[in-house]
Amino acid sequence: MAKIKKTPRPKAETPKGFRDYFGADVTERQTMLDAIARLYHAHGFDPLESAAVETVEALGKFLPDVDRPNEGVFAWQEEADSDRPGDWLALRYDLTAPLARVFAQHRNDLPTPYRRYAMGPVWRNEKPGPGRFRQFYQCDADTVGTASVAADAEICIMLADALEAVGIERGDYVIRINNRKVLNGVLEVAGLPEDATRERGIVLRAIDKLDRLGGDGVRALLGQGRKDESGDFTDGAGLIEAQANRIMGFMAAKSADNEMTLDVLSNLVGDNPTGTEGVAELRQIADLCTAAGYGPDRIVIDPSVVRGLGYYTGPVFEAELTFEIKDEKGRPRQFGSVAGGGRYDDLVKRFTGQSVPATGISIGVDRLLAALRMKGATQTDTTGPVVVTVMDRDRMPDYQKMAAELRAAGIRAEVYLGNPKNFGNQLKYADKRNSPVAIIQGSDEATRNVVQVKDLVLGAKIAETATHEEWKDQPAQFECDRADMVARVRAILDRS
Amino acid sequence: MAKIKKTPRPKAETPKGFRDYFGADVTERQTMLDAIARLYHAHGFDPLESAAVETVEALGKFLPDVDRPNEGVFAWQEEADSDRPGDWLALRYDLTAPLARVFAQHRNDLPTPYRRYAMGPVWRNEKPGPGRFRQFYQCDADTVGTASVAADAEICIMLADALEAVGIERGDYVIRINNRKVLNGVLEVAGLPEDATRERGIVLRAIDKLDRLGGDGVRALLGQGRKDESGDFTDGAGLIEAQANRIMGFMAAKSADNEMTLDVLSNLVGDNPTGTEGVAELRQIADLCTAAGYGPDRIVIDPSVVRGLGYYTGPVFEAELTFEIKDEKGRPRQFGSVAGGGRYDDLVKRFTGQSVPATGISIGVDRLLAALRMKGATQTDTTGPVVVTVMDRDRMPDYQKMAAELRAAGIRAEVYLGNPKNFGNQLKYADKRNSPVAIIQGSDEATRNVVQVKDLVLGAKIAETATHEEWKDQPAQFECDRADMVARVRAILDRS
Repeated sequence: MAKIKKTPRPKAETPKGFRDYFGADVTERQTMLDAIARLYHAHGFDPLESAAVETVEALGKFLPDVDRPNEGVFAWQEEADSDRPGDWLALRYDLTAPLARVFAQHRNDLPTPYRRYAMGPVWRNEKPGPGRFRQFYQCDADTVGTASVAADAEICIMLADALEAVGIERGDYVIRINNRKVLNGVLEVAGLPEDATRERGIVLRAIDKLDRLGGDGVRALLGQGRKDESGDFTDGAGLIEAQANRIMGFMAAKSADNEMTLDVLSNLVGDNPTGTEGVAELRQIADLCTAAGYGPDRIVIDPSVVRGLGYYTGPVFEAELTFEIKDEKGRPRQFGSVAGGGRYDDLVKRFTGQSVPATGISIGVDRLLAALRMKGATQTDTTGPVVVTVMDRDRMPDYQKMAAELRAAGIRAEVYLGNPKNFGNQLKYADKRNSPVAIIQGSDEATRNVVQVKDLVLGAKIAETATHEEWKDQPAQFECDRADMVARVRAILDRS
Repeated sequence: MAKIKKTPRPKAETPKGFRDYFGADVTERQTMLDAIARLYHAHGFDPLESAAVETVEALGKFLPDVDRPNEGVFAWQEEADSDRPGDWLALRYDLTAPLARVFAQHRNDLPTPYRRYAMGPVWRNEKPGPGRFRQFYQCDADTVGTASVAADAEICIMLADALEAVGIERGDYVIRINNRKVLNGVLEVAGLPEDATRERGIVLRAIDKLDRLGGDGVRALLGQGRKDESGDFTDGAGLIEAQANRIMGFMAAKSADNEMTLDVLSNLVGDNPTGTEGVAELRQIADLCTAAGYGPDRIVIDPSVVRGLGYYTGPVFEAELTFEIKDEKGRPRQFGSVAGGGRYDDLVKRFTGQSVPATGISIGVDRLLAALRMKGATQTDTTGPVVVTVMDRDRMPDYQKMAAELRAAGIRAEVYLGNPKNFGNQLKYADKRNSPVAIIQGSDEATRNVVQVKDLVLGAKIAETATHEEWKDQPAQFECDRADMVARVRAILDRS
């Protein structure tokens, strides 16, 4: 401690872009994740919890070919051993890269297909902004080791079930599915072959921005480029009009029903093999979902969904919440995306050399929780504890006994443990704890074997609306036999 | 991806000292933590989840006065801004240092006293060894902002309740309490004043090792030093015999009951003010626990408990599991410590300059879980899913419907999604999943509207013991009406 005294006081601050979660923030999220976990488990998925730390090599996206490979991740180098330099380690940036490593490492012990779910924090070394944090939760479900589109259909069905399990009502969400192979087919037909990486990248990102830029903005990006409101210019893919038309046609292919959408897509890809395969897969997925009772009101083919990530190789999914909220300018808009995923057949191959087909979904935990809060659908009791106040320090065992009795009856309860001298402070404390009830027993009450029960919820209501006369009557506080305490508290809690 | 192809394949390995948790490893821990969380919550404690990352400055133990302050922690330096060098960040090494930072940062918004619990991984940059990992779980409960020993008593009582809540039976655990002030009083009386930091440190560590070194080993460390089996010499505190006697007397002060132990301690500290205060506090804690029904069979004064950490300032606690296990050499010994804690009044002061009294307990999650496993007391169903096999690829919707019906009846179920060509592989898969039942419906069964139900648990039992003739009769498999499938599966699951 001598050393600490010499240095200036440390700042009591979270690092920039990190935050603390208190009380209901923690329990509401846990309750939501528990419901999702139960559902995934019922579908035969097994939990997996990998470590937060991976080698940079295994994470893959950020190879140690630069001096400090921490672009986008939090990374550090281990101390060197005598015989070799230290490994570069990093915090995982998602739950998919660790899954690929886990499956490659344990593939002889794991069942194939391997269905797993995972929930936990991930870290991104990005510039923090309002509502954008550098540690956040993800909740993933993936099936590794099967190329069957039945696995893709299962993921979509399970996602719909998960949204309903946490409290999103049917009609308030839709899961949109598309297929990268269809898009690739359209691109090939439009004269953009696989090795036109740059142009394809621009097209992908442009489609992904349809919501934000509108049709004209996307068309500009498909062509020569686009100047945004701030005057910044983004280079376009340089497509000629016929090419751009085909891609715009793809994005607008969603029709009155899945069958019609598939017809439009069939026409767009013509006899291109990749595109034809993609359309057939989409048809199978939609058929499986419909047969299982998940019609296009819940799971629908929508070619405007492309998902940004480069590693998707087939079907892609996105779950959107369709109920209306107000944006920051007060304009109505849909809540938007809360989950996304798709098929990625090459992630495990990085390690093993063998292609291992896989598909999965990732739920944005914070966004889904925010949606539940807006709908008033969180399933957590946020009532504070009953506070047994301390009137007489020497009778602490009596107060403890009261709290224990309340807890034994299933009622959250505690004894005030601050300095009991100022009784007002005890009530202020109960208020800060969001306590529904305070129990009071001074020496007079103890002698008569009674307690005062103070109904703090009702008290607060009266304080807001009552006249001074009514207030003085204090109807929110009453005396009862000590033996009736638990029953009387229970009655107050049941009322609200 | 082009870049990746040029580099050699990455190794599919966890970093040294890290591990993956699969299936029941995850759910058993979560179930245990949920039970503890419910209990802590009922006692009025609120959850807190701070970020995994803190500034090295806030963590405090590892000040940035060296070039690379990562001794014991995983630390890295942020990119520099244009106007200032980047902060040093680190993964938290426990849940107490972050609590001190959180309370200092949010003290105006938090209730005082602030009761909180926290559960989550912590990281230590130490040499990994067998069973020693660099990421592990802790589960803490602390009360910040009260000097009342009622808070210490509450922590001990709640810890006892928590152990019973997760399945440790009464009689299989004991919570030992002691008080640093008593030890400090004894040291002062023995002629080791507060500023004899080196000697006091050696004494503290020596007492902490009583279990392992025995009385003679500790006495050697109190005196001139000790040579261990490998020949390494550890310097002693250099006490003369009268001094050492007093400390050995302190360690052996535990007597037939709390009252007698307190008498022995009273004699040892004489009229030393610190020691006397410590004895009085111990008496109060023991009295409060006894009054609440937690007698010395569960919570007992034991002066041999000192807890290694330097920051404890008053009462210290340790929970030990007393049931017998075999050590690595087959000798019987007690399971040992699963939780420890105490009062630390100076941690928040680092930030604010004001002393903020606090007390708390930390449960070693992995050790407690290991104990539950040894006692067969984990509360998780580890049964695998019912596997609906695929005999006919085109009837996937029928198989999906079977799985959905089973799930709707609360039975974990899935459709096999690997390549269905080889039926043997499907049963091997069910075996690997620990499935209790497989459902089989080929075209023949479909026509007759029946299914085959294969009881895999019974089947395995028969396979172990049956003759070839019995095996051929396959009594572990039967046919039933499709409409009876759920009921028949339910009957098999209820049997086991």
